[in-house]
Amino acid sequence: MNISHIEHIGIAVKSIENSLPYYENVLGLKCYNIEEVTDQKVKTAFFKVGQTKIELLEPTSEDSTIAKFIEKKGEGVHHIAFAVPDVAESLADVASKGVQLIDKAPRGGAEGLHIAFLHPKSTGSVLTELCQ
Amino acid sequence: MNISHIEHIGIAVKSIENSLPYYENVLGLKCYNIEEVTDQKVKTAFFKVGQTKIELLEPTSEDSTIAKFIEKKGEGVHHIAFAVPDVAESLADVASKGVQLIDKAPRGGAEGLHIAFLHPKSTGSVLTELCQ
Repeated sequence: MNISHIEHIGIAVKSIENSLPYYENVLGLKCYNIEEVTDQKVKTAFFKVGQTKIELLEPTSEDSTIAKFIEKKGEGVHHIAFAVPDVAESLADVASKGVQLIDKAPRGGAEGLHIAFLHPKSTGSVLTELCQ
Repeated sequence: MNISHIEHIGIAVKSIENSLPYYENVLGLKCYNIEEVTDQKVKTAFFKVGQTKIELLEPTSEDSTIAKFIEKKGEGVHHIAFAVPDVAESLADVASKGVQLIDKAPRGGAEGLHIAFLHPKSTGSVLTELCQ
């Protein structure tokens, strides 16, 4: 696998509206995009920090995986996304090394990216996303 | 506050030795430094991913904060560290905005950095470090 950088860090929040003042006024970051990803039942807010984005994830439904995450673990870091040149190729590579996949093929994510998740059972409990 | 990039992501692991094969053989990252930080009772292993480092944190004592974290929440992302030009100045800035501090003044961290932690109560449950 050929990871170039950390594309984003996904952080689960109950409310983007309530979280924005911390990211904007305290950390001094600027939210440049708020977008709903309907098939994942989340609203997302993006901030750029050097090469990496911070992606706040607010559930839009009680059966969203983010709602379940918050219920179980509380707000906090939800996943890390690595940028790779070819998600399908990287998935085949890690699967051949015994990594359990959540997505067997790339799918569409926020910001028009091709994404796939690896299972935290295979990644030291860090939910891991590949992005292209 | 003037954050330039994400300096590192700290990940709590039970054993660096057991975690290395995933980071090196699956993700294809290279561990360039293993270092013990005695006052924090951790052993650390570093990988570079673009601008950002991944820092694995293994407890060296049962009363290490990392041991307690793993006991409570399991292995996983422990903290996010932002690079700032002046930690003392940034601490004063965020304290003036009502953020609760863990470290009221910068202290020494791994790799010779000046660091300070903000309290997760003030940062949306994300343990946050400032690094210089």
